[in-house]
Amino acid sequence: KEVVLLPGDGVGQEIMKGARTVLETVASEYDHEFVFHEHAIGGDAIDRYGVPLPDDTVKACEAADAVLLGAVGGPKWDDMPADKRPEKGLLGIRKRLGLFANLRPVQGFGPLVHASPLKTELVDGCDILIVRELTGGLYFGEPSGRSEDGQSVVDTLSYTREEIERIVEKGFEAAQMRSGHLTSVDKANVLESSRMWREVVNEKAADYPDVTVEHQLVDSAAMKLITNPKHFDVIVTENLFGDILSDEASVLTGSLGMLPSASVRTDGVGLYEPVHGSAPDIAGQGIVNPLGMILSTAMMLKYSFGMEKEAEEIERAVSQTLADGYHTRDLDVEGGKVVDTEGIIGKVIDHLS
Amino acid sequence: KEVVLLPGDGVGQEIMKGARTVLETVASEYDHEFVFHEHAIGGDAIDRYGVPLPDDTVKACEAADAVLLGAVGGPKWDDMPADKRPEKGLLGIRKRLGLFANLRPVQGFGPLVHASPLKTELVDGCDILIVRELTGGLYFGEPSGRSEDGQSVVDTLSYTREEIERIVEKGFEAAQMRSGHLTSVDKANVLESSRMWREVVNEKAADYPDVTVEHQLVDSAAMKLITNPKHFDVIVTENLFGDILSDEASVLTGSLGMLPSASVRTDGVGLYEPVHGSAPDIAGQGIVNPLGMILSTAMMLKYSFGMEKEAEEIERAVSQTLADGYHTRDLDVEGGKVVDTEGIIGKVIDHLS
Ligand SMILES: CC(C)[C@H](C(=O)O)[C@@H](O)C(=O)O
Ligand SMILES: CC(C)[C@H](C(=O)O)[C@@H](O)C(=O)O
Repeated sequence: KEVVLLPGDGVGQEIMKGARTVLETVASEYDHEFVFHEHAIGGDAIDRYGVPLPDDTVKACEAADAVLLGAVGGPKWDDMPADKRPEKGLLGIRKRLGLFANLRPVQGFGPLVHASPLKTELVDGCDILIVRELTGGLYFGEPSGRSEDGQSVVDTLSYTREEIERIVEKGFEAAQMRSGHLTSVDKANVLESSRMWREVVNEKAADYPDVTVEHQLVDSAAMKLITNPKHFDVIVTENLFGDILSDEASVLTGSLGMLPSASVRTDGVGLYEPVHGSAPDIAGQGIVNPLGMILSTAMMLKYSFGMEKEAEEIERAVSQTLADGYHTRDLDVEGGKVVDTEGIIGKVIDHLS
Repeated sequence: KEVVLLPGDGVGQEIMKGARTVLETVASEYDHEFVFHEHAIGGDAIDRYGVPLPDDTVKACEAADAVLLGAVGGPKWDDMPADKRPEKGLLGIRKRLGLFANLRPVQGFGPLVHASPLKTELVDGCDILIVRELTGGLYFGEPSGRSEDGQSVVDTLSYTREEIERIVEKGFEAAQMRSGHLTSVDKANVLESSRMWREVVNEKAADYPDVTVEHQLVDSAAMKLITNPKHFDVIVTENLFGDILSDEASVLTGSLGMLPSASVRTDGVGLYEPVHGSAPDIAGQGIVNPLGMILSTAMMLKYSFGMEKEAEEIERAVSQTLADGYHTRDLDVEGGKVVDTEGIIGKVIDHLS
């Protein structure tokens, strides 16, 4: 299997090393062969090639079986013009590969339920999957920019019915494979795009009689995610709402650093990346939590390569590492043993081999 | 002082009664005269006059010294066409009165820190003011609607520089009067409107050397509001981000039902309403929490009438009622005494007179 690695910026290199080591261990344990090709994206690509998404990178991703991405962005590139910002690399590759569905699972991980800012009984047993639309909405709508006189600015939230349909279907399918409850999040009391979204959800519901559907307004959902997280099973929502709610939902696990994600399309290559960003403030210090990235490789094995068992092995190794009390600095677990990035990768590898 | 009452839909009538009783008590204790004029808005106005915002209501509000609003909306009007939805009444009156600044204070209230889903030590002592832009952004941008063939839909996020400047100034002023820390929330790594927002904040910062300013991305802010709420003092943000973050921030107080808000402009009439909605599921049962509405009247006394002392009296009466252990069903306080809407209003009145 050919895997493209896009470490990107900030802590990207450090976490990618963890992903690679884990995959190499899995390969030797299970007799697979993974071939890795590293390419540039984001600020790193701007520095080296002058653009956030070089053509070479796109071509390599299109030819690969799967893509692993670290993170992009940082203050260094803050004053770049619109088309030379690291984030354009990430948004560009999502769009170019047509990865319209971003799957973000959020689970309480054993001892981590105590690391959550929420009361333990609320998060213990939580298991949510956020299905976020990834290639539409305010992120890509045109026009987007300033008026000629610089006195006003617009961004455009646009969706085609088809774009809404395919992501809503993903939501229903995910709910069907889980406990059969789908929460669709929108702002239908204000936005026309949300009215169409809600209409499509209601139409599709007829095709999935075994799934119970509920609509929530995004403001209300942002509250209920905290007051009653166990209410949720699968959440399906548009791009920006999904961005906000998934970062928020990270509080259920104790650290954003724990969360993996998969960006997929109906078939073909997928892109796997942790939910956290490039964390420039701690980059290069060897202390970043690599588990979100490592769990993303498990999602890759499952979704892109059909290697269910290998994926579960990685998840088990991560759980056991945490159960042994090891964790990185970002987690606040009473009586835990704080180790650095290399340290935690080593523990996971120990449990894998 | 002439006060227009707009009870609206759902629990609106019930909470408005509380507001009125409280104001009547304050009037007699402090020798003020408040004249109340009740008008229709939202679904109630649709049912009675066919439109969510009758001209009469607008005129009455423009002529008044202040406006109190309950809540609008409900499933009854869900299938109405765009211009006949209850929310259009609320959005319309905010826009017509030019109320561009929505102030939403979020405080831990004595015993309520235990009712929060967050660990007590995180919320104890929290004191945040959210300054939300209220008459621009995705809520009002044009175009907003479907394509002719019904196959696509847009909403528009638009701001003029001036609109951003005036709300950002409100944010700085509020921070100056409080502990001098302003967090500006945007999505500047993706949205052009957020780039302008951030630019304006940086420019204005020069005029407020005593305020420390920080920028946060909305996804990250949604997380940090929960992991470290005491970090925040004043948050300034655009309309939709403010909507989402303020509902989310309600978890710090234990119930959305506790939160008041003030919608103001540079001078003149202001509109005061609780942050919660019309709650159709519990309407008419006499169990709604009226404290968000009652605390909104305190904001009215302070901001529109300069009656600082009277406002503090109301806040004190609410605190004492809670300290006595009385609360409505929406709050989960160990050992508390659950009373109904009338009951809690009565307790507040006892502490006022
Ligand atoms: C870096 C940024 C453009 C990105 C997004 O907003 O999608 C990130 O926050 C994410 O959630 O993957
Ligand atoms: C009812 C709705 C239109 C409104 C809004 O989104 O502004 C409400 O959620 C609020 O926060 O006041």
